[in-house]
Amino acid sequence: MIYDLTRTLVSGMPVYPGDPEVQIVAGGAPPWRVSALRLGSHSGTHVDAPLHCIADGRGIDAFPLERFIAPGVVVDARGYADDAPIGVEVLTDVDLHPGMIVVVRTGWEAFWQDARYFQHPYLSTDLAHALVERRVSLVAVDALNVDSTVGGSDAAHAVLLGADILIAENLCNLAPLRCRQTYMFAILPLAPGALDGAPARALAWDVNHRFGSDLS
Amino acid sequence: MIYDLTRTLVSGMPVYPGDPEVQIVAGGAPPWRVSALRLGSHSGTHVDAPLHCIADGRGIDAFPLERFIAPGVVVDARGYADDAPIGVEVLTDVDLHPGMIVVVRTGWEAFWQDARYFQHPYLSTDLAHALVERRVSLVAVDALNVDSTVGGSDAAHAVLLGADILIAENLCNLAPLRCRQTYMFAILPLAPGALDGAPARALAWDVNHRFGSDLS
Repeated sequence: MIYDLTRTLVSGMPVYPGDPEVQIVAGGAPPWRVSALRLGSHSGTHVDAPLHCIADGRGIDAFPLERFIAPGVVVDARGYADDAPIGVEVLTDVDLHPGMIVVVRTGWEAFWQDARYFQHPYLSTDLAHALVERRVSLVAVDALNVDSTVGGSDAAHAVLLGADILIAENLCNLAPLRCRQTYMFAILPLAPGALDGAPARALAWDVNHRFGSDLS
Repeated sequence: MIYDLTRTLVSGMPVYPGDPEVQIVAGGAPPWRVSALRLGSHSGTHVDAPLHCIADGRGIDAFPLERFIAPGVVVDARGYADDAPIGVEVLTDVDLHPGMIVVVRTGWEAFWQDARYFQHPYLSTDLAHALVERRVSLVAVDALNVDSTVGGSDAAHAVLLGADILIAENLCNLAPLRCRQTYMFAILPLAPGALDGAPARALAWDVNHRFGSDLS
């Protein structure tokens, strides 16, 4: 089973305040329907590179592909209040190894298309530091932002990206994944060169999944 | 080892004549560098869905993810003349099973940024029909188009997409892959809904690659 954790890109979808709007213009008559896409580098499900908020940070092209495809776990961070900090307690009993991907499930994907989507809980500075200590590859959330959007902070971004740990935001469809179980994750950005980030397709699959095992 | 088979998206990169131009505008000052991307649905390395040229064809969202991540092979179609048809002979001794991905290596990636890139060889109708008979999942090329761009034909598109076989174009960096050997391929488009196609990140890895085997 492959799980698709990606938001569909549609015109007018929620974006971080001030970011470029998403505009998808479906192409004309057949043959050769070709559409026009206008996106921000942080539209929809996307990956942040250090350059997003570190002055001399690395671009999205500076990371080997192994950083985007790796084993990982979902940690349960549901039940926090609006705009509340998520503490290090969510890592209790989580078997994390260096190089893994961590998906912090806030439950906030349920508020997509709602004003409350912007009032998500966020990673406390302590949690960001704890993830740096664990030397994970990438930290993803099912919310707009790893930092407080209400407060306009950049603390978790600065700690994680400052340690060259990638960030992915706006994941969705986490319900079928069991917390603390190891899956394979692929959070694959477009290849836009040395940019601050890029829209991505985010997937997970069972670690024992054999692609093509049904090939005859 | 993971191989990146994706063209970097850059402003003014070659596109199919008449397609939307690629424009990447890197974002402002830190903090929060955010860039603006304008792309066509068939810019750079991308996947074509049947809707691209079949009037009632399926969109890119209608295919399960297993269609984009599957074992596959590179077939050697180097040595053809400019704008020459590639025949079924390239499938000789290729161990192809239903559901596999086929990458037709024309060698034309070498002419990227050159006028000759538009004069690539193309899949003959016979080869397209042979690939339909093999019930492959996706047919990729290291060229602009599976059809003749010089002739403006849509024959191979019509045969493949008409049989719900996906197409990927503008792959690159095929040199390290051995022809006729089986690799895992992931040719993952963005998730733009029921569109005619989408830019993608294209990867391959050795079938015995163990992601995270170095996790401590």
